[in-house]
Amino acid sequence: MRDPSIVERATSAVTAVVDELKGSWPRQVSVAAAVRAHHANSVTWHPPQPPDAVFFAASTEDVQAVVRLCAAHRVPIIPFGTGTSLEGQINAPLGGVSIDLSRMNAILSVDATDLTCSVQAGVTRKQINDHLRDQGLFFPIDPGADASIGGMAATRASGTNAVRYGTMRENVVSLTAVMPDARAVRTARRARKSAAGYDLTRLLVGSEGTLGVITEVTLRLHGLPQAIAAAVCPFAGLDAACDTAVAAIQSGLPLARVELLDELQVRACNIYSKLNLAETPTLFVEFHGSQAAVEEQITLFESIARDHGGGDFQWSTRPEERTKLWQARHDAAYSCMVLRPGAKVMATDVCVPISRLAECVTLTKRDLAESGLFGPIVGHVGDGNFHVAVLFDGDDAMDLARMQAFCERLAMRAIAMDGTCTGEHGVGQGKMAYLAAEFGPALDLMRQIKRAIDPDDIMNPGKIFTP
Amino acid sequence: MRDPSIVERATSAVTAVVDELKGSWPRQVSVAAAVRAHHANSVTWHPPQPPDAVFFAASTEDVQAVVRLCAAHRVPIIPFGTGTSLEGQINAPLGGVSIDLSRMNAILSVDATDLTCSVQAGVTRKQINDHLRDQGLFFPIDPGADASIGGMAATRASGTNAVRYGTMRENVVSLTAVMPDARAVRTARRARKSAAGYDLTRLLVGSEGTLGVITEVTLRLHGLPQAIAAAVCPFAGLDAACDTAVAAIQSGLPLARVELLDELQVRACNIYSKLNLAETPTLFVEFHGSQAAVEEQITLFESIARDHGGGDFQWSTRPEERTKLWQARHDAAYSCMVLRPGAKVMATDVCVPISRLAECVTLTKRDLAESGLFGPIVGHVGDGNFHVAVLFDGDDAMDLARMQAFCERLAMRAIAMDGTCTGEHGVGQGKMAYLAAEFGPALDLMRQIKRAIDPDDIMNPGKIFTP
Repeated sequence: MRDPSIVERATSAVTAVVDELKGSWPRQVSVAAAVRAHHANSVTWHPPQPPDAVFFAASTEDVQAVVRLCAAHRVPIIPFGTGTSLEGQINAPLGGVSIDLSRMNAILSVDATDLTCSVQAGVTRKQINDHLRDQGLFFPIDPGADASIGGMAATRASGTNAVRYGTMRENVVSLTAVMPDARAVRTARRARKSAAGYDLTRLLVGSEGTLGVITEVTLRLHGLPQAIAAAVCPFAGLDAACDTAVAAIQSGLPLARVELLDELQVRACNIYSKLNLAETPTLFVEFHGSQAAVEEQITLFESIARDHGGGDFQWSTRPEERTKLWQARHDAAYSCMVLRPGAKVMATDVCVPISRLAECVTLTKRDLAESGLFGPIVGHVGDGNFHVAVLFDGDDAMDLARMQAFCERLAMRAIAMDGTCTGEHGVGQGKMAYLAAEFGPALDLMRQIKRAIDPDDIMNPGKIFTP
Repeated sequence: MRDPSIVERATSAVTAVVDELKGSWPRQVSVAAAVRAHHANSVTWHPPQPPDAVFFAASTEDVQAVVRLCAAHRVPIIPFGTGTSLEGQINAPLGGVSIDLSRMNAILSVDATDLTCSVQAGVTRKQINDHLRDQGLFFPIDPGADASIGGMAATRASGTNAVRYGTMRENVVSLTAVMPDARAVRTARRARKSAAGYDLTRLLVGSEGTLGVITEVTLRLHGLPQAIAAAVCPFAGLDAACDTAVAAIQSGLPLARVELLDELQVRACNIYSKLNLAETPTLFVEFHGSQAAVEEQITLFESIARDHGGGDFQWSTRPEERTKLWQARHDAAYSCMVLRPGAKVMATDVCVPISRLAECVTLTKRDLAESGLFGPIVGHVGDGNFHVAVLFDGDDAMDLARMQAFCERLAMRAIAMDGTCTGEHGVGQGKMAYLAAEFGPALDLMRQIKRAIDPDDIMNPGKIFTP
């Protein structure tokens, strides 16, 4: 419960800020209910908490000016890219100004020799790859949504290629962020590595807007492989599919993608994406390399899969077939709605050491059954990372409570296996309760950093932890 | 100049700490001049500044106890692994206690399925690889010296394999550090990736002992490749050698190592390591993979090298030949002494975007000649990172001044090319002067973090920056 006097002071501060925003940037600010609601509309289940106003930034200088104004009045700032985060990162539990960066969508430079490109924070991952297509380069990080690069950096996003190419942690070279005192800082230069000073880049990557507003990002790019082959392989059980992925990783196979779909998720993809797969636990895999290397990898992977009882492979090297397959994988979060129309979906994720993966997935599947819950499982199993999309009745308090209890058990199960409560969705509001268990005294170290950089707690307050 | 009253207070504080150390841990503390001198004996040129005492820690709890004691008296703490850092990181400019971690040399666990291992901070890189040999695994980070893992994490170390396997930034999964308030924190769990909270692991990696004392590290391991091939290729000029490396990277060739040696360094290796190479700019390269993949890579690389005028390749797939070659490369820093016996050596490094590498190396070579200085150049050119080992007369103030002016121009040249003043040696004392130019306002952000975590500046004071 917030102290009423604080609420009153906060309300007059917000009014002052909004008046100033409207006066100085009339074409960049909105207090319309629909716009505010859109900026708190999570794609997964979290109660929406709209901001008091939305500011559409056009430049780093714009962001600096608005941060300066908000800081003077201690009004919260909530950075917003595409609104596709999954743990309530864009909510405004204490009100304030949502800074929408989607108009900052310029690709600033592509440096093909250095395999880097610099973009404004509102550029999306698909926009970059469309831009790069003719240059033989690509940017591999691919969360389900066509998210903004700023948002992906802020949440340390990941996706299906992480097993080979890393996550945003490995693929952000440098970034520019506006800090709570309105300074713009560039965290690093453009060299591939550096031993100079604290790693501010990786401090900001994953900070979910609680330390500053990311306005520009320099990314690492990769050469498009000469050959790509994708395949689908069915298994009798989840553990055999997991064990195949783990054995492939251990054997040193440079898998580009290895995705697990349980039988429910396969059914959802069959319906939503018009696939025609056997409804059994299935691996989607992809190999990148020279023609000869890809062929060699295929042979080795098939033999590993056979050792684990894997069924017939469907290989695909034609781009349109591959695209259809991976589009289906990317649409998994949406597709599962077809299994229970009208249900709400809670998409949660955890990540464990891969030696514990089969066990964690199996226990989770059993937990779903025992709880009377319904939720497909998909996973980036090469990383030990998997998702459950729990479908529940949003109007049924009992069902909601069951879903929440299940998510808590899942997070604590992963932590008990020396894993993490989130492999790629971030903490936001949804995972705050688990950080003490995951980090112990290290959580206080995070708080020390937060308080030092943002003493008034104006940057996305109410996310990750309470400072 | 230090204020005399502060010096006096510090002296009595140090006396109190040393007395307490001797009383409580008589077998783990030394104030002998030789031991103190050894703990300030940099392998490169920095005036030694010995600590007041050396404490040999046997456990994280030991470190906590000593940190608690030093913190109570505001006495500086200088972490020490093997003493092989290159920028004065182990010096004690304000006195204090050197915490020597070399007795903490236990390998705690190897988790082959997860490709991780956990070690105490004093374990060295060669010790790990000796331990792993039978398991088909290896740890790739290989700075010139057989450094300790704690020291390598603290300085964000790198080496010849970084172009393929990354640096300590990418290969530390988690670590335990004793913070200035004597709490031990574990920065992360053992999952391959996580989106939970601030990236404390990467904040500590590269912090050079200024935030805490690293006592345990969990590392990422890699499977030993099925086939390895190494080669030496001579070039007519430095630029052709650099351009070959850059073209290979751009073409997507997964080079495991690509090292440049200029003609002086080749001469030094010929003498010191009894090689028999043409004394001209030369690339040492290595490929890892399956037999077929390595053969394919060799063919492609040879064709790229020929396009740049590269001479005859000497390929080697026999382990003993390869070992001799890479031992020579690792001994480069020592070998160059044979070129000017009795000279002091200043080993400096910078890193630039690879598009600027040939230009930066060429300008640096010219600068050496114009300055009347003598120094071989070696480089991890796939990363844009290169070293100059300036050989100078330590008794000649003019020669010293020339060397220092050259190092400054080199650092500023790299920064002007959007590179960094150090790719792998760290800042220590030697590169402090360049961080303002490299980071601008971001340097103050580092200071904010330092002050929040170590308000009394007891952790390795006088390194990286003045808080």
